[in-house]
Amino acid sequence: MTPPNATTTVSAKPRKIGIVLFEQFETLDVFGPVQMLGRLPDYELVAVSESGASITSSQGLPAGVHSSFAAAPQMDGLLVPGGQGTRREIDNPTLLDFLRRQFEGTAWTASVCTGAALLAKAGILDGRRATTNKIAFDWVASQSAHVDWQRRARWVVDGKLWTSSGVSAGTDMALALVEFLHDRSMAMETARRAEYVWSNDPSDDPFAIAEGVDL
Amino acid sequence: MTPPNATTTVSAKPRKIGIVLFEQFETLDVFGPVQMLGRLPDYELVAVSESGASITSSQGLPAGVHSSFAAAPQMDGLLVPGGQGTRREIDNPTLLDFLRRQFEGTAWTASVCTGAALLAKAGILDGRRATTNKIAFDWVASQSAHVDWQRRARWVVDGKLWTSSGVSAGTDMALALVEFLHDRSMAMETARRAEYVWSNDPSDDPFAIAEGVDL
Repeated sequence: MTPPNATTTVSAKPRKIGIVLFEQFETLDVFGPVQMLGRLPDYELVAVSESGASITSSQGLPAGVHSSFAAAPQMDGLLVPGGQGTRREIDNPTLLDFLRRQFEGTAWTASVCTGAALLAKAGILDGRRATTNKIAFDWVASQSAHVDWQRRARWVVDGKLWTSSGVSAGTDMALALVEFLHDRSMAMETARRAEYVWSNDPSDDPFAIAEGVDL
Repeated sequence: MTPPNATTTVSAKPRKIGIVLFEQFETLDVFGPVQMLGRLPDYELVAVSESGASITSSQGLPAGVHSSFAAAPQMDGLLVPGGQGTRREIDNPTLLDFLRRQFEGTAWTASVCTGAALLAKAGILDGRRATTNKIAFDWVASQSAHVDWQRRARWVVDGKLWTSSGVSAGTDMALALVEFLHDRSMAMETARRAEYVWSNDPSDDPFAIAEGVDL
């Protein structure tokens, strides 16, 4: 007799969040959200890169990868960071195609900072409201004229698309994702355990003011 | 999984900040400070683990490592994170010895969250003021009765020892380190570029109040 579950290798966490990595991604764009999403009981974080090889961040630390784009399973959620590397990846059809292909099957797709440029170039943001970081705003917005770009927002949700402003804003958005995917209580508890002062109003954007952006 | 690339590269940056990694380190304890310290022009970040093998964080993402403890150069600065793994490493004489050995030659040594337990157990904090996170405060404090533990602090500086409160507090402390190592202007600019609202008063600790800690 085969004992129950003897050949079962099912993860205890049935859903997958894909973390898209490329050379010179911005560290906190990835690891702020990873800190918060990593506490969701039903979700496994899966780091992916084009070749499946490890990746080095803009800050010089290597990050491991679980899967190549080609071998990656369909994700339930997808997180696309920004960073200097976006200036190269914006012309990478393999990455843009991966985003388009995954997006169709996700329950939600999120970008942090200039990650929005990649979603825009892939056409995923067309007809949607979206935001990105302040310093590269015009470059990101130039990737698609069919996006309703929001200059003042910590993050923006439009349908299943979540886009955040620069770097740290991704951490605040990620806590809103924890609330969306689980509940408010878990988001509050996740912030408290990390001693993180959650800026939980997506319209509260101190950096729009600091930058003197014309509203 | 493809292990992160551990190839050592010669750097043009003359000073080294050692990032101490162990299984089940807390993600943001490391990568919040890495985001901020990674912009210092004269400093290279060097990730180290006991064996030199890659490490998996509490949130399930693999992190690459540049060097084993034994092969590590003397660091100018050292960052010690917390996380569930500290409950195991507190009884690891090899790690504690590495901390003691490095500490002697550093210009500064910093801990985030329960990383302070490792410094305390190593005897490095004896006779010093120090802090740690709120949830594990009593466990950390029990590692040495010779430390002047501060229950209300975002971070504490005593001589060359910097200790922060839980997880996110490490990011605020890291910006203070950027100010200390370079200047205030770079710290402000680093925060602004990351759209990070820097809590730059080390005595401003909202989580001491939230926890109802007896002051």
